[in-house]
Amino acid sequence: MTERAVCVIGAGLIGGSLMRAAEKAGRTVWGTSASEETAEQAGADGFDVGTDTDAALRRAGEADALVVAAVPLPVLPEVLRRVDAVAPTCRLTDAVSVKVAVADAVARYAPRARFVGGHPMAGTADSGWAAGQAGLFADAAWVVAADDGIDLDVWGDVAELAWACGARVVPAAADEHDLAVARVSHLPHLLAAVLAAVGADGADNLPLALAASSFADGTRVAGTRPELVLAMCEGNRDALLAAVDDALGRLGAMRGALASTGGLEATVRAGHAGRMRWAAARDPQGVRVRRGRTSLAELRDIGRRGDAVVGWAG
Amino acid sequence: MTERAVCVIGAGLIGGSLMRAAEKAGRTVWGTSASEETAEQAGADGFDVGTDTDAALRRAGEADALVVAAVPLPVLPEVLRRVDAVAPTCRLTDAVSVKVAVADAVARYAPRARFVGGHPMAGTADSGWAAGQAGLFADAAWVVAADDGIDLDVWGDVAELAWACGARVVPAAADEHDLAVARVSHLPHLLAAVLAAVGADGADNLPLALAASSFADGTRVAGTRPELVLAMCEGNRDALLAAVDDALGRLGAMRGALASTGGLEATVRAGHAGRMRWAAARDPQGVRVRRGRTSLAELRDIGRRGDAVVGWAG
Repeated sequence: MTERAVCVIGAGLIGGSLMRAAEKAGRTVWGTSASEETAEQAGADGFDVGTDTDAALRRAGEADALVVAAVPLPVLPEVLRRVDAVAPTCRLTDAVSVKVAVADAVARYAPRARFVGGHPMAGTADSGWAAGQAGLFADAAWVVAADDGIDLDVWGDVAELAWACGARVVPAAADEHDLAVARVSHLPHLLAAVLAAVGADGADNLPLALAASSFADGTRVAGTRPELVLAMCEGNRDALLAAVDDALGRLGAMRGALASTGGLEATVRAGHAGRMRWAAARDPQGVRVRRGRTSLAELRDIGRRGDAVVGWAG
Repeated sequence: MTERAVCVIGAGLIGGSLMRAAEKAGRTVWGTSASEETAEQAGADGFDVGTDTDAALRRAGEADALVVAAVPLPVLPEVLRRVDAVAPTCRLTDAVSVKVAVADAVARYAPRARFVGGHPMAGTADSGWAAGQAGLFADAAWVVAADDGIDLDVWGDVAELAWACGARVVPAAADEHDLAVARVSHLPHLLAAVLAAVGADGADNLPLALAASSFADGTRVAGTRPELVLAMCEGNRDALLAAVDDALGRLGAMRGALASTGGLEATVRAGHAGRMRWAAARDPQGVRVRRGRTSLAELRDIGRRGDAVVGWAG
């Protein structure tokens, strides 16, 4: 079953974890890294990872492998140009945290690829091949883009890769995905950065000495490598602006209430209700759909109601 | 050594944990709760907890016990009125999360008490007697107010209680404490509430379905009982306004940069630097001071440089 082979471009935390998980699931896996050192590390761990992207893509084209672009957004155009040059009609997905910008780049640089966007929602504060682990995607949400016009068969191939890695598949339109992650993934990074900066402001160390678990948790993701946060957030500018404006509006209204009546009840209760709603939504029931038959509109509805696809029906 | 006895008013998470920790350290401990049910629970666990505050305070006056007011700020005036009526000159501390408002209340309602404010910086998302545990304060910071005019002997008594509970003592002026906790404890609760509300906004469940660890950590304290958050934050209004304005200013500047150049570098790097500074400041060296001899100004400097007092010298 060569068509179940996977070619991963990029061997960082996500690409490296994906290679490990897919191999563990019995897939034939090879990949590339821009870094000689990473390729050597991966080779020492028994993985077929080189630095020649063209060679890896040529092999993918010959074997009809699913190509996964697991590189940061700024590097993506160069990878897509190689796809168009070497394996122009390959089945292609990605692991980038924004989906509209990726779809635009594919339309521009590799328009013949049979592309279905993907976003495994997993990560740690660490990065690089060594930080990767086969279990990174276990029980995680893995968005598989379900925009009109995509090939339902390739959608199924990407979903199967996600399941093979232990994830559940959340179908979503690219723009709805970007708005959602702006709210629940990118905004948390920016608020964590603001909180960490406010706590560390000034020469006086008393605030940091008194910082306990609320500060530790609220600033955890501010410890992520700035380059990764920037690549993620800056690639989702429009959606992020809407999320930031929502947060600014709520924070401003709260500031007004605190200054006038001193009351914070509306803010605190809305936050508590939101957290409770999140807690209740944590374990989606999971549905099964029919391969190649359940429509893209039906798939998108599954994601909108907060559920996930966990396998094929029938 | 009856003067090492402790009388705790309030048997919730903090008061209940304090009773357990102090008893474990060999102190004679009794307390009161406004709730018949809580008093029964505590009694069943072997603690001397009644509902008659006057009786408990009368005993404290006779035994020269250290009285700890472990009640929410809104309830404090009533407790202080009883102190003034029954044990007016007792040694008194508290466990409330703001210090200026408490000092003001003591000056007004129990002006003869030998008062030194305290704030054990520990907690969980749970509350009530049953949630209490002897180890709650282990390795936590416990602020012991070091304002000019307080009795250094009583300061030492409160510090010894904190050490007996396993905490390290951070000396601070009441107003500096309030500004610090506004930044690192109260603001995190408000930003968590804003983030949880933004994530749960709208009828669409896709954002919550995609919420991963950055959202989970960033909203954790939004799960705290709203009444506790309100009592804590609303009691620190002036200091909190300054912290909120700082956050609003940073978030607004970031919004401007994102909309104009699309760049988030300043925000993300300042946040990363703040988190790194916090991580580096986490384990204070710990100093020893001379009981009744190290001055209040010297004590406050220890807190300002981010260090803590861990015992007596010599």
